[in-house]
Amino acid sequence: MRLEEIATRLDARLVGDGALEIERVVHPADAEGPADLVLATDRATLALIAGTPARALVVAEGAEPPADARVAAVVTVARPRVALATLTALFDRPARPDAGVHPTAAVADDAVLGDGVAVGPFVHIGAGAVVGAGCRIMAQVTIGAGAVLGRDGLIHAGARIGDRVRIGDRVIVQPNAVIGADGFSFVTPEPGSVETAKQTGRIEATNVAIRRINSIGTVVIGDDVEIGANSAIDRGTVTATRIGDGTKIDNLVQIGHNVRVGRNCMICGNVGIAGSAEIGDRVVLAGGVGVADHVSVGDDAVVAAGSGVGSNVPARAVYAGYPAVPRDRALAQLLLMRRLQGLVDDIGRLKAWIASSGTPPPA
Amino acid sequence: MRLEEIATRLDARLVGDGALEIERVVHPADAEGPADLVLATDRATLALIAGTPARALVVAEGAEPPADARVAAVVTVARPRVALATLTALFDRPARPDAGVHPTAAVADDAVLGDGVAVGPFVHIGAGAVVGAGCRIMAQVTIGAGAVLGRDGLIHAGARIGDRVRIGDRVIVQPNAVIGADGFSFVTPEPGSVETAKQTGRIEATNVAIRRINSIGTVVIGDDVEIGANSAIDRGTVTATRIGDGTKIDNLVQIGHNVRVGRNCMICGNVGIAGSAEIGDRVVLAGGVGVADHVSVGDDAVVAAGSGVGSNVPARAVYAGYPAVPRDRALAQLLLMRRLQGLVDDIGRLKAWIASSGTPPPA
Amino acid sequence: MRLEEIATRLDARLVGDGALEIERVVHPADAEGPADLVLATDRATLALIAGTPARALVVAEGAEPPADARVAAVVTVARPRVALATLTALFDRPARPDAGVHPTAAVADDAVLGDGVAVGPFVHIGAGAVVGAGCRIMAQVTIGAGAVLGRDGLIHAGARIGDRVRIGDRVIVQPNAVIGADGFSFVTPEPGSVETAKQTGRIEATNVAIRRINSIGTVVIGDDVEIGANSAIDRGTVTATRIGDGTKIDNLVQIGHNVRVGRNCMICGNVGIAGSAEIGDRVVLAGGVGVADHVSVGDDAVVAAGSGVGSNVPARAVYAGYPAVPRDRALAQLLLMRRLQGLVDDIGRLKAWIASSGTPPPA
Repeated sequence: MRLEEIATRLDARLVGDGALEIERVVHPADAEGPADLVLATDRATLALIAGTPARALVVAEGAEPPADARVAAVVTVARPRVALATLTALFDRPARPDAGVHPTAAVADDAVLGDGVAVGPFVHIGAGAVVGAGCRIMAQVTIGAGAVLGRDGLIHAGARIGDRVRIGDRVIVQPNAVIGADGFSFVTPEPGSVETAKQTGRIEATNVAIRRINSIGTVVIGDDVEIGANSAIDRGTVTATRIGDGTKIDNLVQIGHNVRVGRNCMICGNVGIAGSAEIGDRVVLAGGVGVADHVSVGDDAVVAAGSGVGSNVPARAVYAGYPAVPRDRALAQLLLMRRLQGLVDDIGRLKAWIASSGTPPPA
Repeated sequence: MRLEEIATRLDARLVGDGALEIERVVHPADAEGPADLVLATDRATLALIAGTPARALVVAEGAEPPADARVAAVVTVARPRVALATLTALFDRPARPDAGVHPTAAVADDAVLGDGVAVGPFVHIGAGAVVGAGCRIMAQVTIGAGAVLGRDGLIHAGARIGDRVRIGDRVIVQPNAVIGADGFSFVTPEPGSVETAKQTGRIEATNVAIRRINSIGTVVIGDDVEIGANSAIDRGTVTATRIGDGTKIDNLVQIGHNVRVGRNCMICGNVGIAGSAEIGDRVVLAGGVGVADHVSVGDDAVVAAGSGVGSNVPARAVYAGYPAVPRDRALAQLLLMRRLQGLVDDIGRLKAWIASSGTPPPA
Repeated sequence: MRLEEIATRLDARLVGDGALEIERVVHPADAEGPADLVLATDRATLALIAGTPARALVVAEGAEPPADARVAAVVTVARPRVALATLTALFDRPARPDAGVHPTAAVADDAVLGDGVAVGPFVHIGAGAVVGAGCRIMAQVTIGAGAVLGRDGLIHAGARIGDRVRIGDRVIVQPNAVIGADGFSFVTPEPGSVETAKQTGRIEATNVAIRRINSIGTVVIGDDVEIGANSAIDRGTVTATRIGDGTKIDNLVQIGHNVRVGRNCMICGNVGIAGSAEIGDRVVLAGGVGVADHVSVGDDAVVAAGSGVGSNVPARAVYAGYPAVPRDRALAQLLLMRRLQGLVDDIGRLKAWIASSGTPPPA
């Protein structure tokens, strides 16, 4: 693609040779020549340009391209990460099975595949499943009986879509993700250790018997959702676990039974959301956050990495800490912690002063 | 099933039309008509009943069904979650491959399959493996050479059972779980960075060379165990990693080599148990708990979510925090933390008072 | 193998019958007779020897074998874990598919398999992939188009190697690990909630629109690397996510896009490393550690379990806590926390003393 066309797509200013034919978008360390469009949108990458064979650069507004005679063209963008979204769409090399159904795939007679569906090797599609037009089902995927997938999905290798799970349009499921495993739901016939600990602070009963609560519900996933590698979304007990349109879920995320996640949320890696929690719209849970069962997190809330949400978080709040509290409070506590030694010293001096004042010290 | 029969199975009081034929158990939001038995066992779901076509309800003891003319029958239960166990068993829709061995499956000639074993597509069962009667092996599962499974197990899609692993009766393994990967066990020929840091607090050696300790042991899993999606249980170094009868393990749980977990434990999502830890019977580890290597947790102990167990936990103790301490102490510390600003203020006032008292302040 | 040969391999002192023919290396609880070499290298296992049929022992230097007449030979080793590396190599029972390519495997016509490559059932190897000599590819593995594997690798069941991923020699990938999923990389066209929260502490914009940044980079993994079960290593955005030679990664570890991990690192279970972080050489991240995006951890640093690394860690530092700080400081803070109640009491007494001194107390 010609550089001038790329600049147009980026809605960016181009100075220099717009006729360069670009074949790759690369990091400065990988630059090989004039067919490479080199990303130098921050100070660190900009500093790497000198000495490379980079000819065409993308830089951020306000940045000076280095005084390097070899640079033939500079594209200046306002928001580099937005430009990156456009560039990586232009130069994407998506996973793609061969067209049609691979001869090794096992597709149930009554499964329905839409137009243009590609099914890779060793895929199993169960009885009555429906796969929407344009879906790409990579190798080794299993799609359970009665599952329904919308249009233009991309289900990567080894992903497991359980029976009766419903998935919207343009959903991406990364490798080995599991959608529709059974919820972790058990009960002791008599009140057990956790119930008594919650009531009295002590263990007054033991879990001698455990009964399983089956998960007869399902999982319903909206449009434009992405689910990361090795993540798991359990089915609901009697109703559905729900993930709203546009929500993005990173790798190794656990979402328990009956959870409802709203639209356009960002759920980062290693997050765990326990059963029946409610996550609003546009919520951001940073890496490693834990959310307790039955808790709700309001719309547009942001929870910092590693926090433990044990009680409800209001809309538009920024929370941090374990247990999570408003971030200002969490930061204030951290600063107070750092003053503890000073407090100890102050109190020691006060006691010494009192002792030296001739009055008997406090008992 | 007739409602009166369901009430009998629940050992519950039935008021109203016991002749209703029930086809589904549902959340109020999903209620469609008289064939739905609607769960309204807490205040929130009870409040949803009005305006729905719900005809048959399950409510908790003491709750008043809403004054809604359409309700034709009410079943009152003492412990709603216990009732849920019974109801979800009655209306379960379990995963089930077709009877027999799917033609695409690759089963070693000398593997032994018990009566009624169902094997799904693309399953691989290795040399000498034994699969007990009634087991359901879903698509894409691998069962290693010499592995032994008891009766009536359910191994979901993509689960990996390693060579020589032994599994009891009625065990459920959720999709993509891995049982019998190698332990994470390495050694530096000379004492390395961690050893010196533990001894002196400083890094006095570096891990220039790393040698692997192979895992020649196995994993032994008892009866009635459940293992969650994308969880991993590593094999022991020379002996077995062991999971006791009745223990339930949630999704994305890591259990290291040589760990012993007792009977009837509940290990919630995202827990990590490091090598050679010993977990007693009926222990509850809430979500995200980490347990250090070689640590022991006593029978009936409960560890709160997100806690880090770095030293032994006594039997019947309730622990919380990072590092985990008795929960009462953890709560007291949290409350003290909240008083820190007050302490700072108090000390400031004391100093001001001393300064104003005409005596020289403490140095 | 004769015991005297084993002792030679261990470079260890042998007292007793070196002619014993050893078939297994076992834990005392598993000892059955003279063909078992019984590990009793710590006090706990040594105490278990009495009463067992153990005939041949491995003990640590300085330990007295129990006065048990049945012991016929004792091997004394200087560093038991180093001895264990040798012993488990001698008695390893490695996973091994049958020689050659299993008839059910689907290997692209233009994929290149080196000498002696073994490919298990239902493996898919994509177009143009190269698998080095001596590799063992277990059942159900997928190797993407254009991926390159070095010599003598062992790729366990269900592992997913993405398109164009490059892997060095002697690499072990445990079951269901995912290498080369897409990075979790999104951008809002206008500054979103997290950006405004970072700048102002408040949510002043919401993530109404989310654009995807595709991952057009790859993953490059060095020689002698091991990657644990259900772990995930995402591909880079435009360049490669890199794992250096000799680095060992445990189960359920998440490594984000563009991360660079150096050589000989030990990354323990449940660790999460966010995008673009840089981990030096010989770094140890203990279980459950989280590393924020764009942070760097210096060579030979050790980070304690459960810590959250939010800012750069210097080389050879030992860090702990959430947020992680130098371990000495973290320990000091923990000790100060335990003195808080004492501080509260002291201040109370000081106030009482002032009140009783006849002077008006501070306001």
